[in-house]
Amino acid sequence: MKTHTIQVTVDLVILTIQEQQLRVLLVKRGVRPFEGECALPGGFVREDESLEEAAARELEEETGTKNIFLEQLYSFGDPKRDPRGRVVTVAYYALISPDRAELAAGSDAASAAWYPVAKLPKLAFDHPNILDVALNRLRGKLEYTTVGFELLPKKFTLSDLQQMYEVILNKSLDKRNFRRKVLAMGILRPLKEWQQTGRKPARLYSFAPQT
Amino acid sequence: MKTHTIQVTVDLVILTIQEQQLRVLLVKRGVRPFEGECALPGGFVREDESLEEAAARELEEETGTKNIFLEQLYSFGDPKRDPRGRVVTVAYYALISPDRAELAAGSDAASAAWYPVAKLPKLAFDHPNILDVALNRLRGKLEYTTVGFELLPKKFTLSDLQQMYEVILNKSLDKRNFRRKVLAMGILRPLKEWQQTGRKPARLYSFAPQT
Repeated sequence: MKTHTIQVTVDLVILTIQEQQLRVLLVKRGVRPFEGECALPGGFVREDESLEEAAARELEEETGTKNIFLEQLYSFGDPKRDPRGRVVTVAYYALISPDRAELAAGSDAASAAWYPVAKLPKLAFDHPNILDVALNRLRGKLEYTTVGFELLPKKFTLSDLQQMYEVILNKSLDKRNFRRKVLAMGILRPLKEWQQTGRKPARLYSFAPQT
Repeated sequence: MKTHTIQVTVDLVILTIQEQQLRVLLVKRGVRPFEGECALPGGFVREDESLEEAAARELEEETGTKNIFLEQLYSFGDPKRDPRGRVVTVAYYALISPDRAELAAGSDAASAAWYPVAKLPKLAFDHPNILDVALNRLRGKLEYTTVGFELLPKKFTLSDLQQMYEVILNKSLDKRNFRRKVLAMGILRPLKEWQQTGRKPARLYSFAPQT
């Protein structure tokens, strides 16, 4: 049986919400190809690690954070997607709440920063496509899962919750309808705490999925 | 940057419905490892083809059929999943209607046949896990997409449709509730043809998704 040599990488679409914008972590590439351009963080899979382990390692290298939502997205393997040769990449996406979204730029990244998804720089490789697939997955999952809560801090107001949906779906939602629907889902626990930042105090909630 | 050599394969979970059972295409392996055992069909990705092209090629080799539903499922890359060395496999799943489910055993398969998912032989590699992931994906998608129609012939009765849901979900559904729901979805076109096989003639329908 004839076999071929392909290199395998993992690439990460790490998303957060900052300043009322959905943002993605990008690195400025410090090496060729595409030196100086922005790219999704990622790297080669090591001989002794699984794909999940490689993704978790890269995630920790870039963000200094473990134990955040990380899910395999899709694998991309166009023969011409990397000028260095045949590279198949297994993309993952991660969701990180704003209170944990700190950065630790990895060794192969000249710099890493959060960029608004709505206003991106030019991206290297097929990374625009990978990012699109991630955003579509997230928007799809928002409809039938509670994955969006990964993007909220432990305690949040109903305005925070609505804003999370709005920035991901990129559209405004009617406040009364939204509150009625999410409260009817029975997955929010009202806390005895209020947030004082707005004109009037806003009740804080926590996410309490039914078991 | 240190790079590693990993081999990349595609594996296919090809599903159909035959004799009121959900069935998966398996090959008896004619070569080591796991010679003589059953496995999902698959093979190495060629240097000049994308992952999708490799999956479509394997699908055509095994079934003699093009243009059927084929979607990337998940990539599996445990370092010990293949005794031959480091092999990452990108799994795809395909759905093929009973009227098109003919077989053409590929070159590396001693034989290929449809096995009931409910009564499987021992499977080689991590293929039990890959099959589980495919079945979970299909069951999940059945809830919020019309993907199940890929498993029906062009003209079908409401009994055929209900049976398709029942064999995938592996549970009985209430006939009246089921018919009320699917007719309310507005995606069925009643034909002026009836099927004469049962005790009384059953109306035939076609799938007419709204555009």
